[in-house]
Amino acid sequence: MEDEGFMRLALELAKKGEGRVNPNPMVGAVIVKDGRIIGMGYHERFGDKHAEVNAIEDAKKRGNSPKGATMYVTMEPCSHRGKQPPCADRIIREGISRVVVAMEDPNPLVNGRGIRKLKSAGVEVRVGVLEREARELNEVFIKYITTRVPFVAVKLALTLDGFIATRSFSSKWITGERARMKVQELRRRYMAVMVGANTILRDDPELTCRISGCTDKVKVILDRHGLTAGGNFRAFKEGRVLVFTESEKEWNKGEVIRETDPGKILKILGEKGIDSVLIEGGRAACQFLPFADRLHLFYGNKLFGKGISPFECLNVDRVEDAFRVDFRGFENFGDSFYVEAIPCSRE
Amino acid sequence: MEDEGFMRLALELAKKGEGRVNPNPMVGAVIVKDGRIIGMGYHERFGDKHAEVNAIEDAKKRGNSPKGATMYVTMEPCSHRGKQPPCADRIIREGISRVVVAMEDPNPLVNGRGIRKLKSAGVEVRVGVLEREARELNEVFIKYITTRVPFVAVKLALTLDGFIATRSFSSKWITGERARMKVQELRRRYMAVMVGANTILRDDPELTCRISGCTDKVKVILDRHGLTAGGNFRAFKEGRVLVFTESEKEWNKGEVIRETDPGKILKILGEKGIDSVLIEGGRAACQFLPFADRLHLFYGNKLFGKGISPFECLNVDRVEDAFRVDFRGFENFGDSFYVEAIPCSRE
Repeated sequence: MEDEGFMRLALELAKKGEGRVNPNPMVGAVIVKDGRIIGMGYHERFGDKHAEVNAIEDAKKRGNSPKGATMYVTMEPCSHRGKQPPCADRIIREGISRVVVAMEDPNPLVNGRGIRKLKSAGVEVRVGVLEREARELNEVFIKYITTRVPFVAVKLALTLDGFIATRSFSSKWITGERARMKVQELRRRYMAVMVGANTILRDDPELTCRISGCTDKVKVILDRHGLTAGGNFRAFKEGRVLVFTESEKEWNKGEVIRETDPGKILKILGEKGIDSVLIEGGRAACQFLPFADRLHLFYGNKLFGKGISPFECLNVDRVEDAFRVDFRGFENFGDSFYVEAIPCSRE
Repeated sequence: MEDEGFMRLALELAKKGEGRVNPNPMVGAVIVKDGRIIGMGYHERFGDKHAEVNAIEDAKKRGNSPKGATMYVTMEPCSHRGKQPPCADRIIREGISRVVVAMEDPNPLVNGRGIRKLKSAGVEVRVGVLEREARELNEVFIKYITTRVPFVAVKLALTLDGFIATRSFSSKWITGERARMKVQELRRRYMAVMVGANTILRDDPELTCRISGCTDKVKVILDRHGLTAGGNFRAFKEGRVLVFTESEKEWNKGEVIRETDPGKILKILGEKGIDSVLIEGGRAACQFLPFADRLHLFYGNKLFGKGISPFECLNVDRVEDAFRVDFRGFENFGDSFYVEAIPCSRE
């Protein structure tokens, strides 16, 4: 029980790195000696020091020696040299005598090696404390590191009767202010934002995350027919922009890739180091549904009767053949509500 | 604060009459003497004794005299002779010295007269304790007694993309078991259930309330073209059935009324003493939307992409012209969720 309490704190710390560590995992670490916390740290930004080292340095800065202490860390300490030296070695060198780990590192380069290294140096290791919570926290990292395909999240703002726009493509605003704030939070969680060309033409969005401290999003634009070529749109103003197209037209800015197959687009994004993408692009989203790991559905307090449906590419004739989801969460925003769902295999 | 506690109990008692007192209001009463509850009662069934009388008789049965006591009652005691003698007279006769009332009786035949009668007999009266709760509890009664038009509730089971059936009219089951239990609860709340002829032809529903102690529902069938005439459907088996049609065909059972205008249908139902109707009939529901007092929307964990939309009769071109609602409540059933909404005036 005591282990769980300290691990929960480590998970809280880990979460502070959200949106800044991709494609690394969020990791938090807490060092405890004689029942007292002597050091805390988390992985703050991609390329920076790991959580374990930050916690050790925090302890020392506060005049505490980690020797003989217990370290709580939300993911197995690394055993390989990446951008940072291996944490397992540092833990051993500091004389930490016990390490409690929430989950093994799913990275094939680590995957148990860090734990084995600690154990063979005589460190006591306990694995699996709040493992479910740790896996949920790092679902993006886990998918990407094991498949090299980005985590795919689809966000849609819908009327109560399932439309993203009226017949005449009017869509501002279906949901309320608080729902749109939540969308900003979602953008922080994912490394890239994807929309279709029509969204660029109609709404000219910046596709930035307006939460302070949030890193720039990679902007992915699906533009089969080259409708945005030559245009002067806000999404192209700053940051990294990728355009996927069949068109031979020229773009003034951004990287242009001649590919429009959804599966291949995702593979290319993965190869470019993009661990996650939030698809916000109305009807363009539909073709990515078979690849979706998560649906973020926002329902406004409106009915249109007829309009633009974002799921039209699904062609279900019998209820048994429906695209099914498991609900993961609900949130009530007063004038709109939010449903988080995980696509599941068909019945 | 003490008044509120006893009134809350009276409201709980009142609710026990749900589905059995229509078109009367649900009323509960609690009698308190020297800080102690000496009698409780509620209006149990249409035509039976009122809550006040039941509470007085309960007190006496338990050997307590209501003389000098305080009575808490969720609605103003009646002053007129309906199916029962006026409660105000009885309260005065019993020597009850104080009456706390949640809300005035909106019935034009009472409407303050009961309170005035009590006051002029020297009874101390306090009005308005938990008035909001009392009004919510009796929203059906309030609408009906003041307009003589039934309270109109529309219930729909929808996919996440807003369909009530696939393109081939397959619809069993869009929502889960717990959502369907909730529908039974809703049926209890309203006096009549309305469906379109197509629902009868396709699903052959009984349209009964399967909760024990629930009174029979009046079954209203909208059948413009006489599709159910001569048929042997389960809905016609028992209870009161009303068929609204344009057809000159003959029905073996039920009362046939040659009317299909939604507003006129509701007026006729009101004249027949029906205080509330739950419309469960797929696309038939749409024409009643302008008259709806409540939407009960159940969303299943499925997407169809294309299908039968229940709101097709709405023709919204601009977001500003959407049919808008205020959310009143949410309920999560695990594999489906429920949204209760109140239609509101257009922006």
